Amino acid sequence: MSVTFARGFRAAGVTAGLKASRSPDLALLLADAPATAAGVFTTNAFAAPPVQLCRERLRSGTGQAVLVNSGQANAGTGAAGMRDARVSTGAVAEALGVADASVLGCSTGVIGEPIHLDRLLDAIPTLVGELNVAGGEGFARAIMTTDTVAKQAAVERGPFRVGGAAKGVGMIAPNLATMLVFVTTDAPMTPESANALVRRSLEPAFESLTVDSCSSTNDAVLLLASGAAGGDPIATASPAWRELAGATEDVAGSLLGQLAADAEGGTHVVLVDVEGAASTEDARRVARAVADSPLVKTAAWGGDPNPGRLLQAVGSAGAAFDPTRVEIAIGDAIVASGGVIPPGYFEPGGDGHARTAMKEPEIRYRISLGDGTGSSRCVGCDLSHDYVRINGEYTT
Amino acid sequence: MSVTFARGFRAAGVTAGLKASRSPDLALLLADAPATAAGVFTTNAFAAPPVQLCRERLRSGTGQAVLVNSGQANAGTGAAGMRDARVSTGAVAEALGVADASVLGCSTGVIGEPIHLDRLLDAIPTLVGELNVAGGEGFARAIMTTDTVAKQAAVERGPFRVGGAAKGVGMIAPNLATMLVFVTTDAPMTPESANALVRRSLEPAFESLTVDSCSSTNDAVLLLASGAAGGDPIATASPAWRELAGATEDVAGSLLGQLAADAEGGTHVVLVDVEGAASTEDARRVARAVADSPLVKTAAWGGDPNPGRLLQAVGSAGAAFDPTRVEIAIGDAIVASGGVIPPGYFEPGGDGHARTAMKEPEIRYRISLGDGTGSSRCVGCDLSHDYVRINGEYTT
Repeated sequence: MSVTFARGFRAAGVTAGLKASRSPDLALLLADAPATAAGVFTTNAFAAPPVQLCRERLRSGTGQAVLVNSGQANAGTGAAGMRDARVSTGAVAEALGVADASVLGCSTGVIGEPIHLDRLLDAIPTLVGELNVAGGEGFARAIMTTDTVAKQAAVERGPFRVGGAAKGVGMIAPNLATMLVFVTTDAPMTPESANALVRRSLEPAFESLTVDSCSSTNDAVLLLASGAAGGDPIATASPAWRELAGATEDVAGSLLGQLAADAEGGTHVVLVDVEGAASTEDARRVARAVADSPLVKTAAWGGDPNPGRLLQAVGSAGAAFDPTRVEIAIGDAIVASGGVIPPGYFEPGGDGHARTAMKEPEIRYRISLGDGTGSSRCVGCDLSHDYVRINGEYTT
Repeated sequence: MSVTFARGFRAAGVTAGLKASRSPDLALLLADAPATAAGVFTTNAFAAPPVQLCRERLRSGTGQAVLVNSGQANAGTGAAGMRDARVSTGAVAEALGVADASVLGCSTGVIGEPIHLDRLLDAIPTLVGELNVAGGEGFARAIMTTDTVAKQAAVERGPFRVGGAAKGVGMIAPNLATMLVFVTTDAPMTPESANALVRRSLEPAFESLTVDSCSSTNDAVLLLASGAAGGDPIATASPAWRELAGATEDVAGSLLGQLAADAEGGTHVVLVDVEGAASTEDARRVARAVADSPLVKTAAWGGDPNPGRLLQAVGSAGAAFDPTRVEIAIGDAIVASGGVIPPGYFEPGGDGHARTAMKEPEIRYRISLGDGTGSSRCVGCDLSHDYVRINGEYTT
């Protein structure tokens, strides 16, 4: 269902030949009329030309179409890359008969390789011809790179529908929208309420995901609201807005889970919950230090309930806390209390059920730092031979 | 030669049975008389009891012996761990007939597992009996954990000798002395000039090393000066002090190279040199972001001259710079200029000799950020299947 679950949108995905694999690589999302639009983007200093173009065009608070290509990221490409982003979105605008400025663009794939512009332009008539209200799945497939499954979500709540599609399996870390995420709704929105929805219901979810601590040059979270459900624009923080926020958070949560489960080389999803921190920032720092630690990640892969590595990661996070008040659990098993690993932990049966908890598809680490009110969750994955193989043997 | 190259020191290493492998696991370094001593230690909040003991005892500026065990890190062990550190160094002090406070202690191995105190205490008479002026190599061997070779260095400069031993192959990152490093000299020093030497000639070298971005709970860099070369204590920044600093830096550089070359699973040493940064701090941040990036590390393992991953890591480091002025080289090949990857880079022959440079035992990335004066080097390694195997299949 994906992005066409919400009323007022059509989509399509085709093979333009941008990828050597000949799998689908060009996608288009179109609102029937100019939609309210908002987004958040990478904080990487080398933000790709399509990201720069999106930032520029979203100042209007509206957008009608999103062109997405996979295969080349169009990053590290300088002025030529910006020209390619303008030319490709311009060609789509012309084919659709809409204003240039209403077409947003996203790219994902190899950084530095120029986009195969001729092939992209040749494919636009077919792409536009295939736009349809059931095109969400084709859209979700054409934005994939090393993803093994398409990520889609759809939620209906009261009068509103919210749909979403996402891609991203590596080069994903917090501090921004670091994958491509497209969320549509048929709720009527102003640019202000759309922006508020992005900040409240999308950004925190996708910022909590870290596959490999690498913030990409390209990635983006975009929200388009068609208003096709009818009615007046809903005001920020009104009951209708809160209902919509709930539906949007469900879509975000579903896409987040699908992204984490498909992480490059990942065999377990790792949830790190931190509570009792002096501040939210400290809680985030600790959660991320644990989720990004290569030693924690390899232990997760190996099924090793290793409290020393958790202690090491928590202690080096740079957060302020009293080490003698720290409690750490793996699943329901306490593996450190008062900052100390129980003396019998390494004896047979001494780990409670920590070893069993490491076998779950979702491994859950819970870290309590003390009395503070700061809490945070980070969603990560393990580090396996396949991550090394995927990223060591191919140019991405 | 190691730590006994400098006059006035004896050392030994024995098998106490702390490790299941029955390889040497207990080491002792002894100065003939109380030596001037200084050190730097982990910044991890869960600093191990032996680290806490060293900090406490080094306030005096002197020390006569260092007891080191491998097998258990005596970290995450709380009050019981502190008792074990006091009891074991106390037993050594008694056997040697020196003051308790003059015996320093270091531990490395599994975090959280209580030290096998009975076996350690049983081995002390043998350990003390084996102390000799050629015992540096035995010392260097007994401090190893997953190290595959002993790391030793010896330099003579003018009237002074400097010797060193080190261990550490994983859980190594900047922001502290994150491995065990022991440096001895026969130069006569005051506590002040010894501290200054640690800050100038040891700390920067060992802070530049990152194997896996994980700052350990235990590790320490210790300097002991016996004064056996004779003469008055040398003053900080005097010509003699500068000569000694040069020799100490040579020892540090040699040990650093040996640590990087023996990094867990590493097949290449990776040197990241950053220049033109707005500040030294910014240069460090960028160098470390590149050296720690899992995508850069897997590319180094795979021999992939991937400029996009370098650009990604530089751009996400959080340093201030103008992206359009960034130049990146792999070996002598420019792979990004003005923040842009050359358009023909991915064509056959388009990478200059970057692919060849990736085959060197030392891969060198050079990043110029612009006109600033900040520069920094980070020494890292690649990320291979062996790192995943070593850390995924064993409890460390």
